[in-house]
Amino acid sequence: MGETVKLIGAFGSGFAHRAEVALRFKGVPYELILEDLRNKSELLLKHNPVHKLVPVLLHGDRSVCESLVIVEYIDEAFDGPRLLPADPYERAVARFWAHFIDQKFAKPFWMSFWLTDEEARRRILTEAKQNLSLLEAQLEGKPFFGGDSIGLVDIAACALAHWVGVFEEVCGVAVLTDEEYPELCEWAKRYINDETVKQCLPSRGELVAIFSSCKEMFRAIADSQHK
Amino acid sequence: MGETVKLIGAFGSGFAHRAEVALRFKGVPYELILEDLRNKSELLLKHNPVHKLVPVLLHGDRSVCESLVIVEYIDEAFDGPRLLPADPYERAVARFWAHFIDQKFAKPFWMSFWLTDEEARRRILTEAKQNLSLLEAQLEGKPFFGGDSIGLVDIAACALAHWVGVFEEVCGVAVLTDEEYPELCEWAKRYINDETVKQCLPSRGELVAIFSSCKEMFRAIADSQHK
Repeated sequence: MGETVKLIGAFGSGFAHRAEVALRFKGVPYELILEDLRNKSELLLKHNPVHKLVPVLLHGDRSVCESLVIVEYIDEAFDGPRLLPADPYERAVARFWAHFIDQKFAKPFWMSFWLTDEEARRRILTEAKQNLSLLEAQLEGKPFFGGDSIGLVDIAACALAHWVGVFEEVCGVAVLTDEEYPELCEWAKRYINDETVKQCLPSRGELVAIFSSCKEMFRAIADSQHK
Repeated sequence: MGETVKLIGAFGSGFAHRAEVALRFKGVPYELILEDLRNKSELLLKHNPVHKLVPVLLHGDRSVCESLVIVEYIDEAFDGPRLLPADPYERAVARFWAHFIDQKFAKPFWMSFWLTDEEARRRILTEAKQNLSLLEAQLEGKPFFGGDSIGLVDIAACALAHWVGVFEEVCGVAVLTDEEYPELCEWAKRYINDETVKQCLPSRGELVAIFSSCKEMFRAIADSQHK
């Protein structure tokens, strides 16, 4: 395609990581523009006026928003290894689980770290763990959700591979344990040790620093969102 | 492909309509299995254990859940007119707006009918109207979201074409008016008068009867979900 590719991201964002790692797998050169989310740029607001969120992919004069939409776009617009399977049914299964992660899994998972009311936190942790068990079952006998190689669902689940340990450390709670989720824990190691993923994975130490500095804000937001 | 196609739906469900109309556009013969959602069948629970919701597409020995995933699956698995554009960027734009409808548009739109606290309802109606304006702008100069023919976004927005008038009648409120949303109102007429859509659109009268009978239940749920 020959057009310039820029990615508007933000340091430490798992959603931006999804888009970045997809570009890396496809071998697409890109410029990463790091956004300050507390002071959003004109560029971000111009290209994502609906959600005002990162990531945004700028490909020539076109812009694509929403991380899962971006990953599918990258898969279709560029050559390189497939991120979604070729078979329509397997593609549907991948989309189902990627949407599951964003629409059913993400909120209770996130809340299970940040809620300050311990009883409410434990209730939502139960819900988060039911969802974790569903993902654990999907991995049975496979190195990755995508089979032998990293695909859409692995990329969608990146927070579960790398960010989860950061949240556990910052909040002093254990959610993803080897005893309860052996397949997910092995998968997480494989994901973060993948040579391509490593090229664009924020360091654990820097993530801990960022999420620690935002701890009170995240707690206040989680509490306000909890009925 | 030659395998049998069955669709688990429920009378009056806009989500099930999405899958059904996609099958009709592709000219795929199917058997429609109507579910009683107050007494869910073993068949539904077996094939959609995660969400326990309609629609579910049964294609040979494979099952696909989640209406937008089903529409994309139908588009990819069967011949016939395209429901998503061929161009990767246009596909991304279609996916963006289809996801927008489910993730940002649907909840305030639904709540703007059923909330019983009038102040809360008016606040959420403001949010619903901002989202309606975004959709209105997407139609500018086009007969359908998909351009000259019905596509993924039109199908995703079916509730806005047909169900909205039912909700307005049952709840005695006006949300989608010609004055405020002329393009959407014209689009809605084109959608419901499409010869293929008409083959599987539940009648207005029957929908009014069903939604009237569920009015108190929907109101109680909406009130309980509202912070």
